[in-house]
Amino acid sequence: MKNYKGFLIDLDGTVYKGTEKITEAIDFVKELHRKGLPYLFLTNNSTKHPSDVAKKLTDMGVPCETEHVFTTSMATASYIKEQQADAKVCAIGEEGLHMALNDCGLEQVDERADYVVMGLDREITYDKLAKGALNIRAGAKFVATNGDVALPTERGFLPGAGSLISVLSVTTGVEPKFIGKPQSIMVEQALEVLGTSKEDTLMIGDNYATDILAGINAGIDSLLVHTGVTTPEDLKTIEKQPTYTISSLSEWIFAE
Amino acid sequence: MKNYKGFLIDLDGTVYKGTEKITEAIDFVKELHRKGLPYLFLTNNSTKHPSDVAKKLTDMGVPCETEHVFTTSMATASYIKEQQADAKVCAIGEEGLHMALNDCGLEQVDERADYVVMGLDREITYDKLAKGALNIRAGAKFVATNGDVALPTERGFLPGAGSLISVLSVTTGVEPKFIGKPQSIMVEQALEVLGTSKEDTLMIGDNYATDILAGINAGIDSLLVHTGVTTPEDLKTIEKQPTYTISSLSEWIFAE
Repeated sequence: MKNYKGFLIDLDGTVYKGTEKITEAIDFVKELHRKGLPYLFLTNNSTKHPSDVAKKLTDMGVPCETEHVFTTSMATASYIKEQQADAKVCAIGEEGLHMALNDCGLEQVDERADYVVMGLDREITYDKLAKGALNIRAGAKFVATNGDVALPTERGFLPGAGSLISVLSVTTGVEPKFIGKPQSIMVEQALEVLGTSKEDTLMIGDNYATDILAGINAGIDSLLVHTGVTTPEDLKTIEKQPTYTISSLSEWIFAE
Repeated sequence: MKNYKGFLIDLDGTVYKGTEKITEAIDFVKELHRKGLPYLFLTNNSTKHPSDVAKKLTDMGVPCETEHVFTTSMATASYIKEQQADAKVCAIGEEGLHMALNDCGLEQVDERADYVVMGLDREITYDKLAKGALNIRAGAKFVATNGDVALPTERGFLPGAGSLISVLSVTTGVEPKFIGKPQSIMVEQALEVLGTSKEDTLMIGDNYATDILAGINAGIDSLLVHTGVTTPEDLKTIEKQPTYTISSLSEWIFAE
């Protein structure tokens, strides 16, 4: 196994499952920490602030500061900032999205927006959707934090960001620019934060369709760990395989 | 022009435009009324009760009782009633939908629904969408009042029923059965109310994509009147033409 200098790590299904820890993964991160290897947790959850995510991880015994967390809201905000530093943004989403935009110094508006950005919003209203639609029809660019169509919860699969976002794409006929995994943008933004090169970085996750494809799309090596969504059976029919496939992160052998 | 015995008539763009009357159309309906020819106003607006629609029309001078109005909510409720008389329905929509289901004696539930039915709902919440998604995933049949993606308003085009409904189709992967125009179901349900045969009935409207296609799909003659959406230019590229095309309903000549 190659001597990687940086690690991008998915959370749900990889480090924990809902509220349950995956011990082998936590030991793996502890080893990264001990060796001083940089790592960043990559999540398509746009609703939380990185400090909340870091707290959850710390409580589980994962060595994690706020700086180790990179959400799709942060990737979205920094993408927009790069495109247009003084962009006015009509944002539809939860606290994690609004805070990420604030943290990037982007002004949030209801009208005359340069960008409409949408993520999961469990306080969605018709008025928010109307404002989004009107701004897009008036020419605002349309960006979406992530395309996940379903949200796994204790009640079952509920509507995810990707399905709520379809209201705006269907009504305006404009497809959004998606930022989160499996898009390469998320990985590229994360590499800027991590500070390692594509050649030296490994993307780790349990979900082929999001984590592994994000790695493949961005042109970096990927490691699929079978502790979550994608099964060995699922992989059989897939053409572009992950660089590595393992059952548990305890199987990973660090180069000495 | 053929001697039709029954008339299905669209409202917005045909009888009025927003709050503005179309005098020629109103005179046309008065003539139908005078001659004792049966007519039914067909609207894809699922949010209103037919009595409210009738009042608006009466106020504009159109001879209209509640019985002259057939909404997509009424068509949807009677379609479900025909499919399963004791169906339990999880309904997402406005008053017009809930009342139409009640009027058909269909029980409305949050869980263990046989049908999920969705129309325009400007009081949409995540919880309503979640209930709809969970019921569809649990096997409920999915029916949509209409597929209109945009709603023309004074503020501009806002999200229509079809765009809100996409949340449930995208998140569950299940496409709804659409009832409203241009589906033939709406026309077939209307003919049952009107009591005339397909051969003897004319569908009149301003919108090729909804009104005229509904007529064509149901196999009845159609009349496009250029007082609304579809222009003569639009018609040039269309293969299946309306049976008749006129500029205004004042041009219609009744058989003596």
